[in-house]
Amino acid sequence: MEKINRESLLLHQKLGGKISVIPKMDIETTRDLSLLYSPGVAEPCLQIAANPDEVWKYTIKNNTVAVVSDGSAVLGLGNIGALAAIPVMEGKAMLFKKFAGIDAFPICLNTQDTDEIVQTVKNIAPVFGGINLEDISAPRCFEIEARLQDIGIPVFHDDQHGTAVVALAGLINSCKVLGKNLEDLKVVINGSGAAGVAIARLLRCVSNNNEACIPVKSVLMADTKGIIHRGRTDLNGIKQEVLRYTNPYNETGSLQDALHNADVFIGVSVGNLLTPADIRLMADNAVVFALANPTPEIMPDDAFAGGAAIVGTGRSDFPNQINNVLGFPGIFRGALNARAKTITAHMKLAAAYAIAGCVSNPTAQQVIPSVLDERVVAAVTQAVEMAANEEPVVVW
Amino acid sequence: MEKINRESLLLHQKLGGKISVIPKMDIETTRDLSLLYSPGVAEPCLQIAANPDEVWKYTIKNNTVAVVSDGSAVLGLGNIGALAAIPVMEGKAMLFKKFAGIDAFPICLNTQDTDEIVQTVKNIAPVFGGINLEDISAPRCFEIEARLQDIGIPVFHDDQHGTAVVALAGLINSCKVLGKNLEDLKVVINGSGAAGVAIARLLRCVSNNNEACIPVKSVLMADTKGIIHRGRTDLNGIKQEVLRYTNPYNETGSLQDALHNADVFIGVSVGNLLTPADIRLMADNAVVFALANPTPEIMPDDAFAGGAAIVGTGRSDFPNQINNVLGFPGIFRGALNARAKTITAHMKLAAAYAIAGCVSNPTAQQVIPSVLDERVVAAVTQAVEMAANEEPVVVW
Repeated sequence: MEKINRESLLLHQKLGGKISVIPKMDIETTRDLSLLYSPGVAEPCLQIAANPDEVWKYTIKNNTVAVVSDGSAVLGLGNIGALAAIPVMEGKAMLFKKFAGIDAFPICLNTQDTDEIVQTVKNIAPVFGGINLEDISAPRCFEIEARLQDIGIPVFHDDQHGTAVVALAGLINSCKVLGKNLEDLKVVINGSGAAGVAIARLLRCVSNNNEACIPVKSVLMADTKGIIHRGRTDLNGIKQEVLRYTNPYNETGSLQDALHNADVFIGVSVGNLLTPADIRLMADNAVVFALANPTPEIMPDDAFAGGAAIVGTGRSDFPNQINNVLGFPGIFRGALNARAKTITAHMKLAAAYAIAGCVSNPTAQQVIPSVLDERVVAAVTQAVEMAANEEPVVVW
Repeated sequence: MEKINRESLLLHQKLGGKISVIPKMDIETTRDLSLLYSPGVAEPCLQIAANPDEVWKYTIKNNTVAVVSDGSAVLGLGNIGALAAIPVMEGKAMLFKKFAGIDAFPICLNTQDTDEIVQTVKNIAPVFGGINLEDISAPRCFEIEARLQDIGIPVFHDDQHGTAVVALAGLINSCKVLGKNLEDLKVVINGSGAAGVAIARLLRCVSNNNEACIPVKSVLMADTKGIIHRGRTDLNGIKQEVLRYTNPYNETGSLQDALHNADVFIGVSVGNLLTPADIRLMADNAVVFALANPTPEIMPDDAFAGGAAIVGTGRSDFPNQINNVLGFPGIFRGALNARAKTITAHMKLAAAYAIAGCVSNPTAQQVIPSVLDERVVAAVTQAVEMAANEEPVVVW
């Protein structure tokens, strides 16, 4: 880890920033200049002024995404601010290009005020075909994203939905391996931040669009104070909202109480939280997705020692890496291809099934494809594009 | 013109936008991923969090400029809005890369409210090393630029200062050709928009920084109602401000009255405004910079017929093309190299003298270097960088 940090620092310094903006065509003559700039450029401008939809034809909007962060919840580093967040957003922009051929540009915001972030994103939207919100802390991230759903291009907070989509993909394949039904699972989510809430919403098929699907019937969410239930008086707005679609029997108690007889534990919280004894409380053939980074809620060996059948983490050095990079490139590629105005629950579900489908024969050691599996982005793109166009998604 | 428009439209459609964002290094292995993204990227983040100045070392900020427009005054097209402005801003980004190796990204704003523009630019500033304001209408452009001078990176409205710098370069060489002194010229500026006001300010060495230089003693500005003088009751704030450093003897009358015995006419207004008879009112060896695009205030032949000694326009099909591209690439390159916090009058003057210096033997037919003269950006860069570092500028 020390070594990677040192090398990473040197590499960042050598590169002096990780992305570059280049012309698609060189300007070599005054004629080139007159076609690409003045006076010829007036013509596409006039076409767009007359018919705003032509912007997709003549400008970078058709393939360009903003990676927007206020630096309030960066990686595991917390609230390090806009400047310090830039290397992460540049890296994300690299991934967009590498995995989906999308031109992505980092926008790091010098404000953490919800209203200002919403207004700023609205103001800069014209040049972009989509907005990837990144590393914005909960609960502000929910309001910010919700208030940006009507701006005419997809606004997608990857820390929420990217994680949720890939985790669901893992669950879909886990069910195949274990012979269980997704809708019958008893799922416990620990952590009520961006990812936790989005996972609960996706499993319960709750979206801004109020679309229907076949939901997982039993989802419990826990935070540092235990199970989120109706008797608690310390719940903020988002936790109260989560209660509308979780914990139908109003169960109370600790995380350990929640784990009793649970089929699935999804941790999006902090490292070193659970012991093998805790896993033993779960049902047979339990699935443990311990996604805290870099240290999982429980290490895979300990989870297996507690009787888990399938274990996933966020790390590349264990099997079943639940990594957003399996999701967002194809999701945005499909949304851009379809010229979608939002990313619906339908599209997210389609993405999850597409990711799951890339593992031909799921086993306990592989319920998730490799992050370098190039088939994933193509499969997700196609599924999301079809879902956006409201074609029936045939994968389930 | 018809033909160029058609070809330009087809080219824009073929390219589907004129710029692209690319990684500086390919991600080929999971090790690359761990160095450029998680977990290695945490290290430059932490360094910047600890010392914000390190952002210049580890991120794209050191070479990246935003081209920001609200689409309110695009080319000669007027207020066509944010979407329709995108092709121009992409073109400008291409020029930044072509002429100065700068990574520039277009930001087109979905608002024309002064306060919102100021706030939005402040909010998105972290990732940029400079802001090029573009095609924002007067008088809002003055307030917007002025209110953004304290954000720690240069904010430069090119329609103002780019034009002013290149026009001054033309005047410097015109004086050499005609044996006149810059400070003794009687200059008439017609047009009180972005360019007109900036030219007046630069010739009179007026800046937000209140720097001193050797100013042109006599500058008159005219608008559609004639000479701007103290007796007028129809003057907006910026025209009242211009009176603080123009028209010291409070001359009144029409544009023609202003032209009596003037050494220099600079038109930044509308086409077909003057006749040879008007030029005959001017002093011997008059200089006429008729910069309205695409049709100048007076065509060169007519200006010469009226006795002008030197004529410049904004067009590439006549000698002495006064084009911003001679200015902004080197000005931003020099400012970024020096890590300047603002672009001072001192830096703009240095740029003008550097551009002028690129014409070894000025003649009436060449007081301005060619827009494709590659020596210009190097000369401007060096001069601006030196001026930013407050080294004495030795060119005059």
